[in-house]
Amino acid sequence: MSELLLNIDQKHKDTLYKQIYNGIRLSILNGGLKAGEKMPSTRQLSIELSVSRATVTLAYEYLLSEGYLESRSGSGTYVSRHLPEEYTQIDRKSINIDGLNLTDTGIVDNVKDYAIHLYENLSYYGLNLKTGNYLDYATSDSDVDIQFGFGRPDLKAFPMKKWMQLMTYHAIRANLHLLDSPHEAGGYHPLKEALSHYLLKSRALPCKPNQIIVVNGSQQGIDLVIRCLLNPNDLVAIEEPGYLGAQRAFQAAGAKLIPIEVNKEGLRIDILKANYDVNSKKILKMVYVTPSHQYPTGAVMPLAKRLELISFAKRTGTIIIEDDYDSEYRYDGRPIPALSGLAKSAPVIYIGTFSKVMLPALRLGYIVVPEPLIDIFTSAKWLTDRHSPLLHQQALTDFLNQGHLERHLRKMRPIYLEKRRTLIKLLKELFGYRVNILGDDAGINILARFQTTISDEEIIQKARELKIGLVTTKSDYISKQVSGEFLFNYAGEPLPKLIAAIKKLPNIIY
Amino acid sequence: MSELLLNIDQKHKDTLYKQIYNGIRLSILNGGLKAGEKMPSTRQLSIELSVSRATVTLAYEYLLSEGYLESRSGSGTYVSRHLPEEYTQIDRKSINIDGLNLTDTGIVDNVKDYAIHLYENLSYYGLNLKTGNYLDYATSDSDVDIQFGFGRPDLKAFPMKKWMQLMTYHAIRANLHLLDSPHEAGGYHPLKEALSHYLLKSRALPCKPNQIIVVNGSQQGIDLVIRCLLNPNDLVAIEEPGYLGAQRAFQAAGAKLIPIEVNKEGLRIDILKANYDVNSKKILKMVYVTPSHQYPTGAVMPLAKRLELISFAKRTGTIIIEDDYDSEYRYDGRPIPALSGLAKSAPVIYIGTFSKVMLPALRLGYIVVPEPLIDIFTSAKWLTDRHSPLLHQQALTDFLNQGHLERHLRKMRPIYLEKRRTLIKLLKELFGYRVNILGDDAGINILARFQTTISDEEIIQKARELKIGLVTTKSDYISKQVSGEFLFNYAGEPLPKLIAAIKKLPNIIY
Repeated sequence: MSELLLNIDQKHKDTLYKQIYNGIRLSILNGGLKAGEKMPSTRQLSIELSVSRATVTLAYEYLLSEGYLESRSGSGTYVSRHLPEEYTQIDRKSINIDGLNLTDTGIVDNVKDYAIHLYENLSYYGLNLKTGNYLDYATSDSDVDIQFGFGRPDLKAFPMKKWMQLMTYHAIRANLHLLDSPHEAGGYHPLKEALSHYLLKSRALPCKPNQIIVVNGSQQGIDLVIRCLLNPNDLVAIEEPGYLGAQRAFQAAGAKLIPIEVNKEGLRIDILKANYDVNSKKILKMVYVTPSHQYPTGAVMPLAKRLELISFAKRTGTIIIEDDYDSEYRYDGRPIPALSGLAKSAPVIYIGTFSKVMLPALRLGYIVVPEPLIDIFTSAKWLTDRHSPLLHQQALTDFLNQGHLERHLRKMRPIYLEKRRTLIKLLKELFGYRVNILGDDAGINILARFQTTISDEEIIQKARELKIGLVTTKSDYISKQVSGEFLFNYAGEPLPKLIAAIKKLPNIIY
Repeated sequence: MSELLLNIDQKHKDTLYKQIYNGIRLSILNGGLKAGEKMPSTRQLSIELSVSRATVTLAYEYLLSEGYLESRSGSGTYVSRHLPEEYTQIDRKSINIDGLNLTDTGIVDNVKDYAIHLYENLSYYGLNLKTGNYLDYATSDSDVDIQFGFGRPDLKAFPMKKWMQLMTYHAIRANLHLLDSPHEAGGYHPLKEALSHYLLKSRALPCKPNQIIVVNGSQQGIDLVIRCLLNPNDLVAIEEPGYLGAQRAFQAAGAKLIPIEVNKEGLRIDILKANYDVNSKKILKMVYVTPSHQYPTGAVMPLAKRLELISFAKRTGTIIIEDDYDSEYRYDGRPIPALSGLAKSAPVIYIGTFSKVMLPALRLGYIVVPEPLIDIFTSAKWLTDRHSPLLHQQALTDFLNQGHLERHLRKMRPIYLEKRRTLIKLLKELFGYRVNILGDDAGINILARFQTTISDEEIIQKARELKIGLVTTKSDYISKQVSGEFLFNYAGEPLPKLIAAIKKLPNIIY
């Protein structure tokens, strides 16, 4: 037992039997104790370590039950002979014995070779993730007092109490077998019915409930579309500037991205038609659009353009991915009907989310797929993560059916509108001709294009010194270098605070 | 306006302006109203329809703002000239006008061609989903009184009230910006710390918190592993019988599955060594195992075999996917340490879940990845669905740190053990030599192999007539035809009910 080195410490947080257990176990793995070697009796060891015999017996019992030790009747306890020789020999030198901790348990090999080996085994997708940098998003900065950069709704205004009442109601009563069947992976049926009603009413989008797949936010909607429909090297047209989350997801899957300019009417369909129409040799697999409120420019695609895009898609077979991330916030008239509702058999997949109208951290969204794709998308959702959390889905059903969402939106629209108009007026007063406000009266952010000689980086840095978080649209462009374009989300902060922050900007942007 | 066919109905659920709006809109899309055509004045139309002029004006305003109509100063209102000709002409005949409903809005093409076109555009993965049948799982039957087939914990015993208190606590206070950064896509940091502590303590698995990726249940863990590491045609060894959810996910991704027999010690590593060791030409990419409690046989892989599997993996570079779905339920001694904890630099990915110890419908699990893969898996999670719901993660952190999970497990273990032992005894009494109970004293289900001449289908059918839901392991086999193997989950029902149901079985299985 000389090699056993049992460091028994009466004050150690681990109980005594556990210290003995760990010490013997590691010594066996280390080869300090050899296969077949006889162990001291429990009595012997208890005297040696000055602990009770019951403590040693307990440790031995665990080691026996786990196969480290074996007992031969009438002869005592031995280190198991069935531990593979190859294992205990090869790795003998590489281990320390001082109980379990984060670094020294297990057998340490050459860590560098190990990493290389893992990288050699990456999939096509995994290798894309390794070589691209998919984690370099601008993110909110906890050091600042006000964060202009992110498209968040006003979290404090959300009727959280009501939401939690609904959650709790279902939690107490829930039949949690409800989504057992893979056929229900697409979502809780009453929610799909409520969404189908909601889409018809608010987006003129008629669909059957089973065309709806409930997902964990719009990102999963985009991801499922990509997985089911996109092969590496497929051509995908996207808006430029456009939503980075979609760009990145397409890139990671190996799409060839074709950035298409955006103007006051959204994506320039004339460019699509000029380059990818039926006579072109280049086949466009998909076009990703945010027609109701282009991200980040805020342009609203007029009806005529929508119809033109649908015609193009029908003619060429291009699949339209319509990301309708915040059409609920429109201040000058009824929302324009969703693309998906304008043409029953055009290849359009609609993506909706509750991130902008409720809470981003809920991770709840949905997609509407053409009928021939229902089973395929349902299978994909089932294999991916079974289904979205049931309680959330049940609470959301009531939230929609009982009118809470409508009430919340009715309450928020005039508040957001007032903030929007006040800030636009203020920016124009402060910057005059040197600022251009893009986009229509919609959404919960403003895109301002400044004429300035100061670099984006310097502006962001100086803003941070004033405790103001700014985000540029730079990374929303793929083929162009654009500067001086900043996003102003006004949803989450009270108007006086927004005004005070905006008033500081002329000292930074000039 | 003869073609406008405005069906104004005072009793219709839609307001009058909406009926007018819909009628005109559909007539324009239908071509009944042509581009450039002059519209009646609001006064004229209000008289014609016997509605107030304000109502007509409101409808016109929406149509103007959406681009269906245009006004020329001094000259009146016209159907927009900018609606593309191609669109309104081609589809003229295919639309009815009677307001929005599920079937007649939008432009109907040849639906059959449309489906074919969509199928031609499926990805490799999408095509696999279409050709395989991924939705034909046995699922729980609401017609039965007792459901033996599924590995569910006792939902009624879960401290739901405590859980909802924790959820509500965080909901009211939550800073929902917490997971803003893609670097945090892997999960809420305090939860990762709690899990790292839990894994070290309960599974002898030392890992750094950032090696943990919080996912939506173990299925998403399996899916992320597949996406990041598996290419089509890669060889993957899996247990036979084995977990269908993993099999299907591998198949959908194009893996070549190699079923490996399972015996009392779990996956037969000797078969792996004989066929895929370093001298073999065939390279095994992954091996998927459930060593702590093999699904569905219940075998526990002894330590020696675990070490042997790790040696094999290190030698050959095969990546081990360790699915530890229910190791918390072990009744005869401490759980055997996780494979992942036995070898620091062996290529092992550990998958854990809270489905079996808390609630399946929560959709919460986690994976532990080797350090070189942290960024890649974090990127994958971010691109897939951003992150798992924050409130769940916060509540789970407290649930672990405040000892609720341990308390819950301590309470449930003796209850499950009593049920287990009683049912095994009863089955042996009732069936004698004609039943063989597989597996160790672990988990929340029993696998019973019956000697019977009755087919599985007939047994299931007859059981259903007695209001008993049974599930066979038939579909857990890939290369073999096996019958007479049934799963008995005993967690969710009280013992007398379980006994009563089991006592009926000799009339069905004989």
